[in-house]
Amino acid sequence: MSDESYEALRPDTLAERLGAIDAIRKRVGDPASWQVREVGDGNLNLVFIIDGAAGSVIVKQALPYVRLVGEAWPLPLRRAFFEYNALVRQAARDPGAVPELFHFDEAQAMVVMEFLSPHVILRKSLMEGRRHPDLGAVLGRFCARTLFRGSDLSMKTAQRKADLALFAGNVELCDITENLVFSDPYFAAEMNHHTPGLDPIVARLRADIDLKIAAQHMKAAFANNAETLLHGDLHTGSVMVSDSETRVIDPEFATYGPMGFDIGMLIANFLMAYYAQPGHAEAPGARADYQEWILSVVDEIWATFSDEFTRLWRSERTGILYQASLFEDQGHGFGAEQARIERLAAIWRDTLGFCGIEMHRRTLSLAHIAEYDQIADEASRAACEARGLVLGRALAVGRANFNGMAEVLGLARQINGEDYL
Amino acid sequence: MSDESYEALRPDTLAERLGAIDAIRKRVGDPASWQVREVGDGNLNLVFIIDGAAGSVIVKQALPYVRLVGEAWPLPLRRAFFEYNALVRQAARDPGAVPELFHFDEAQAMVVMEFLSPHVILRKSLMEGRRHPDLGAVLGRFCARTLFRGSDLSMKTAQRKADLALFAGNVELCDITENLVFSDPYFAAEMNHHTPGLDPIVARLRADIDLKIAAQHMKAAFANNAETLLHGDLHTGSVMVSDSETRVIDPEFATYGPMGFDIGMLIANFLMAYYAQPGHAEAPGARADYQEWILSVVDEIWATFSDEFTRLWRSERTGILYQASLFEDQGHGFGAEQARIERLAAIWRDTLGFCGIEMHRRTLSLAHIAEYDQIADEASRAACEARGLVLGRALAVGRANFNGMAEVLGLARQINGEDYL
Repeated sequence: MSDESYEALRPDTLAERLGAIDAIRKRVGDPASWQVREVGDGNLNLVFIIDGAAGSVIVKQALPYVRLVGEAWPLPLRRAFFEYNALVRQAARDPGAVPELFHFDEAQAMVVMEFLSPHVILRKSLMEGRRHPDLGAVLGRFCARTLFRGSDLSMKTAQRKADLALFAGNVELCDITENLVFSDPYFAAEMNHHTPGLDPIVARLRADIDLKIAAQHMKAAFANNAETLLHGDLHTGSVMVSDSETRVIDPEFATYGPMGFDIGMLIANFLMAYYAQPGHAEAPGARADYQEWILSVVDEIWATFSDEFTRLWRSERTGILYQASLFEDQGHGFGAEQARIERLAAIWRDTLGFCGIEMHRRTLSLAHIAEYDQIADEASRAACEARGLVLGRALAVGRANFNGMAEVLGLARQINGEDYL
Repeated sequence: MSDESYEALRPDTLAERLGAIDAIRKRVGDPASWQVREVGDGNLNLVFIIDGAAGSVIVKQALPYVRLVGEAWPLPLRRAFFEYNALVRQAARDPGAVPELFHFDEAQAMVVMEFLSPHVILRKSLMEGRRHPDLGAVLGRFCARTLFRGSDLSMKTAQRKADLALFAGNVELCDITENLVFSDPYFAAEMNHHTPGLDPIVARLRADIDLKIAAQHMKAAFANNAETLLHGDLHTGSVMVSDSETRVIDPEFATYGPMGFDIGMLIANFLMAYYAQPGHAEAPGARADYQEWILSVVDEIWATFSDEFTRLWRSERTGILYQASLFEDQGHGFGAEQARIERLAAIWRDTLGFCGIEMHRRTLSLAHIAEYDQIADEASRAACEARGLVLGRALAVGRANFNGMAEVLGLARQINGEDYL
């Protein structure tokens, strides 16, 4: 991959540079009609919308550094290559779940894809107190289908190993996860920042041996246990929603890792949105029903994941693991069911472990979440964040002990009624 | 890697083909003096000894098929590339443990290396009832050093991921392990064979749901949990011994996998040698002391592995996992010790799981072991093998419950006094 010809796009040069590409012209119309806006609000990339006579597309281009930090933190352009490859696989494994792809330019680190409208980023919608039908079902199904179908439960093993090798090249993005998610929250890392009122609880967490061991246990699982192709950054900022549709975007952190990682990170972001609600309420208590709706989405994510995983286990278990020749073909179909329950239990434990760690890092490490950040009153913000930290600790350390999602949600509710500062 | 120029070596063409290679001439002397013997007794490759005026070397060349089976089972020549790369890494991680390398020819799938003399294959020596000083210590240390130093506990993560990607190409050899070790023993796979007297116990094992789930659990760990670079085939036929020295050979099955795999396979082969002793005894009971010596080697392997892993954990933990910044640097060195005990416990469970499965597959699947095969009396052979099958089942299914090696060896002894047929 050569970066020599790479040049960052600008709204004013975009028509000139991309106007000759048929796949784009076909979707947008004559370049003379193009209106270009830069709308990137993420941490890493340039994102443009091209509106034209025939329609609109999104152009996403990697920058050679972390946008959030600047040129002092270089980041390879080839993450666009991994994002493109992940999108292709996700589209095949859960059709309709990700934006349609129109064009990929490896040298320009650029993906041109479907412009989703009137969709908004789910995180924003959760701050506004909006509800979306089937949200948990679509996300749970996305996890089950992409995670199952990218694993040795389903794929030809030679193809899985080739993909493992391919995505092993996404080193720098994995490195971000490995540091910012699993380690930085638990010591005074340089780029950390947190709401000042949290100081006492942060000191307790950093002195908590069992928690730090749990975080490193989950880090080892993330770094080593290459079960399946992960989205790698499946939070509520990587989901776009409308009143009728849910789509998943931005898999540039894609890597092979454990199944529980995507689900755990996703659930963590809902649980943080849950704790953030008092900070966004129109009046005290006004978001109580909405908070319950958020918990119902979490419940639906796991229930749908579990159901769809079970369906795929029974109908698509064509990989090298738990072969039918050992179970169903010997009249031991119940053995395959016992094995399924064991696998789901392992994914459940991992899910809770990753969930707890994600709740910590989004409060203590470099990249925070808008739900918390946009609570202007510092004391209210700290109170909300503290609840998330307490639940995160309980989930990460106690991950082997939760007997179903009702127990997790019950604990979340109980913590929501407490003040930890 | 082009195979176009590949041609299998023959004793009569060897001097002509290799005589011009300086690295070989330097070790062996003028090609006019070479005496060549083909000595391969393994399942896969050609192995030649060149004796010359100045010394001797080993030439190992891959064949494009499985030697044990023939051309009907093709196997890629590039396994020599993986063997060479594994030997280079093992030599760096545990200096002196593997034969010195003199020359590698990728196109000819050929490695030229140190001729170990008067060493013999350990498996042969165990049949003859010979003892070797420090055997368990050398092997335990080899496991600790190669497994620790090839992992994210030690390596730079970018280098580990590059190695992960490299060895992910060793698909076909992994495929052999994945099928022959973890699945074939538990159903009527085509290439299986076993001593006829075992039929009833084999039927019980194949109907044993918990065992089959355990085997698939271990298979998933082998296929997915890329903790470190494994030797991949560390049995007593991959160890050469003299009265004073122990060396490890033949890592062509090298792949990234869980730490317990190498140790578990190694211990399994000692435990099978233990059960095979009555079939090789000069008189009934004559090998009782020798059996205890074998168990003492197993004990020493784990004890040394554990000690050396601990030493490396404390002195070389420079990778991304369990960083000192989270523990020692915060005055929580005891936290790092608690974490070490957790990791060793996980490796211990895996070790027992892999050990149990290896004891089954060497009795029921394609590739058996000489210790059993060379017991001429079929009833005696079946009696020995049955004990190994019973212990293997207990270890694989009960892997989480054994409280130290003394408990494992105690069970091994108890089973040795029983008749299961």
